Amino acid sequence: MDIKEFFEQSAGKWFSQRTSQHLEFRQAENGKSTIVMEMLAADDPEVIKLCQQYHIDPKLALCGTKITWDGTIVWDKTQQQQRGANVLVLIPDSDKPHQGKLLRSMGYGKKTAVVSRYALGRDDILTLIAEDETMYSEDRIWFASPNLRMRTNILKNSDGFNQASLCSEIRLGAASPPQKVEETPSAIRFYS
Amino acid sequence: MDIKEFFEQSAGKWFSQRTSQHLEFRQAENGKSTIVMEMLAADDPEVIKLCQQYHIDPKLALCGTKITWDGTIVWDKTQQQQRGANVLVLIPDSDKPHQGKLLRSMGYGKKTAVVSRYALGRDDILTLIAEDETMYSEDRIWFASPNLRMRTNILKNSDGFNQASLCSEIRLGAASPPQKVEETPSAIRFYS
Repeated sequence: MDIKEFFEQSAGKWFSQRTSQHLEFRQAENGKSTIVMEMLAADDPEVIKLCQQYHIDPKLALCGTKITWDGTIVWDKTQQQQRGANVLVLIPDSDKPHQGKLLRSMGYGKKTAVVSRYALGRDDILTLIAEDETMYSEDRIWFASPNLRMRTNILKNSDGFNQASLCSEIRLGAASPPQKVEETPSAIRFYS
Repeated sequence: MDIKEFFEQSAGKWFSQRTSQHLEFRQAENGKSTIVMEMLAADDPEVIKLCQQYHIDPKLALCGTKITWDGTIVWDKTQQQQRGANVLVLIPDSDKPHQGKLLRSMGYGKKTAVVSRYALGRDDILTLIAEDETMYSEDRIWFASPNLRMRTNILKNSDGFNQASLCSEIRLGAASPPQKVEETPSAIRFYS
């Protein structure tokens, strides 16, 4: 799978079940949300706008995706509503298209723009890393099947790692529960 | 990192915080446990015994590990104690040592022996796959730092995928909270 195919497979409407584990407090909070991901072509006005915001030539963009979410998080018996939207744009490295810069219209827990990096492994696991002087965030995303996406995240601040989370995401509208369609798991197939 | 180094880094005592998400019921259960992992040399009596049990020449074994755990799982407000031990032995493919067979003294949720496969990606993510006619289990394990290990699992039965879980595992005895010691994340470093 190449990085564009990975984003194409991500497009659609997903039910996401999220658990965040607080490493220091050794406690967990759970959330559920609906996520819609829409593929954006390289010449989409939103892709061009984000490139310009980062002072990057829009011709270098491979594609983009627009993500909107609507959900709730339960923490200490109180329920919190969360809604938002984010645009991501891929700027591949010129010599290695499976890795590059990832532009985000919204940073991690911040309202400011953050440049991060992406790398798609040959085991079809996508790693996204965002980092600045105050935080480090690492996402790992892969498809267990076309209709079941796994997403983990770890967050670090100046005191060290403080949160790990897992989202299991089921494609809405697909036959439920999601099936494994491939005979050979991708991770093993690659090495065979 | 090679597969032996991966297991060497896994050795020690870990605090594991586990969350299992039930995909169909859209509910989660949480657990905590202490895990001890002990590296076993290729000529360790327990490694030889497991090879013989599987009718595999013990000379083909690279190394092994003995895992013991003691913990609790909270499900529907009731608490369940879980204790156990498992021995794993690596039998690398002759031409590709980063992948091969994984022998287990105990199968997934079964008391019978199960042969599974391992593959260590160049992004230092270890994938373990166990499969028979009734179930499919896929683990993905990696180190966020030498003292923070991440472990995910997905389980599938004849009805499709039914469970996803995350364990964040903190090395006990290490400076707490665990620090990111490497300047460049492994996933990105590999591709650079």
